[in-house]
Amino acid sequence: MAYEFYYWPGIQGRGEFVRLALEEAGADYIDVARESEGLAVMMRMMEHADRPPFAPPFLKDGDTIIGQTAAILLYLGARHGLAPKDPAGGLWTHQIQLTLGDFVAEAHDTHHPIGVGLYYEDQKAEALRRSEEFRDSRIPKFLGWFEQILARNPAGSSHLVGGTLTYADLSLFQVIEGLAYAFPKAAKRALKNAPLVAALHDSVAERPRIKAYLASPRRIPFNEDGIFRRYPELDA
Amino acid sequence: MAYEFYYWPGIQGRGEFVRLALEEAGADYIDVARESEGLAVMMRMMEHADRPPFAPPFLKDGDTIIGQTAAILLYLGARHGLAPKDPAGGLWTHQIQLTLGDFVAEAHDTHHPIGVGLYYEDQKAEALRRSEEFRDSRIPKFLGWFEQILARNPAGSSHLVGGTLTYADLSLFQVIEGLAYAFPKAAKRALKNAPLVAALHDSVAERPRIKAYLASPRRIPFNEDGIFRRYPELDA
Repeated sequence: MAYEFYYWPGIQGRGEFVRLALEEAGADYIDVARESEGLAVMMRMMEHADRPPFAPPFLKDGDTIIGQTAAILLYLGARHGLAPKDPAGGLWTHQIQLTLGDFVAEAHDTHHPIGVGLYYEDQKAEALRRSEEFRDSRIPKFLGWFEQILARNPAGSSHLVGGTLTYADLSLFQVIEGLAYAFPKAAKRALKNAPLVAALHDSVAERPRIKAYLASPRRIPFNEDGIFRRYPELDA
Repeated sequence: MAYEFYYWPGIQGRGEFVRLALEEAGADYIDVARESEGLAVMMRMMEHADRPPFAPPFLKDGDTIIGQTAAILLYLGARHGLAPKDPAGGLWTHQIQLTLGDFVAEAHDTHHPIGVGLYYEDQKAEALRRSEEFRDSRIPKFLGWFEQILARNPAGSSHLVGGTLTYADLSLFQVIEGLAYAFPKAAKRALKNAPLVAALHDSVAERPRIKAYLASPRRIPFNEDGIFRRYPELDA
């Protein structure tokens, strides 16, 4: 039975981390909210499920509904060979994903530092201040951590964990894609100091299933409704 | 062998979710950074570990180091009967914890909306704006979700998952403690609409090991260096 994947239909957002794992796994899935009437189905499930997700994305596999991006990837990683089988390696992969999640939340807050209920235009002054700290301090700190992990991986620096691809690699790829879209200048600077991260990004982009996905209409282009938004005034 | 627990020694912070699980489990653990020279040990481990945590808290169990609060609780929950044994129930517990983590991050950002590298005093105007949205919109939304989960739990409304205590219950207790400290007025209002949440909080406080822990010097008092800070101007 195909997985049912639920996320806001017009953006990559947090759902994209799940889409990339499903695509790399070659899994059979339906992107429900992008189908006719699918958004209404999604909203009903959030309201009426016995175990309601707080927010999209969520995944339905038979009777099981799983929310929270990192939890979905924990689930898919174990089922599709996108995480090590040993418990310590699996937990380490999850730990990296959770840290990527923290990074993504900070990237989101660059344009919404005051609150999700307000428009960007109503918090632009604050966004300018927050973006400066994000560019100058947070991007280098996070990328430095990923670079260090790659450098210390005893199985080689091509992957974050072990010698083969994990969902953490896919997620780091997506974060770099997002940074390059939203903060092209700052991302370029930071990647010069993180050559292993840059190489991992490029190698993921060349994986056959990812390459095909990125070129397909299933990949929603970045836009100014998602997490990574190109507001030129926030980059420098 | 005792667990080694690592966190900033002067605050409850994110580490407190781990402390509560260790205490409820009656686990043997050392709060390393609160021992003499312990902070230096913590900093060295973050710098030199093969799998370095991005930030505290982290837990060392033999040779395994686990960072990220939710990942630590996933690990401890399975070992100490603080999560259901069935995979779907374990993942649901984890999903709730991750949502609590999102809530905690938002609580933190009420006093640091512009960046962690700046003092509160340098972002106070922004903090006032962000706190208003947090009080009026986010606290009710999150507490409403927890209330709904409790109401829909087929095993009864005394716990978030199943018929016995999980680490998610402990974490919800801690979040309510924090909100009551930082936003006493807003928390009181919101809890009137979330009586099951309030009852769960009170029942956790009465558990013998938790009660003993809260009365002990091991429990660091809330203060204005942690996540939940009492700045009266942010409450209303």
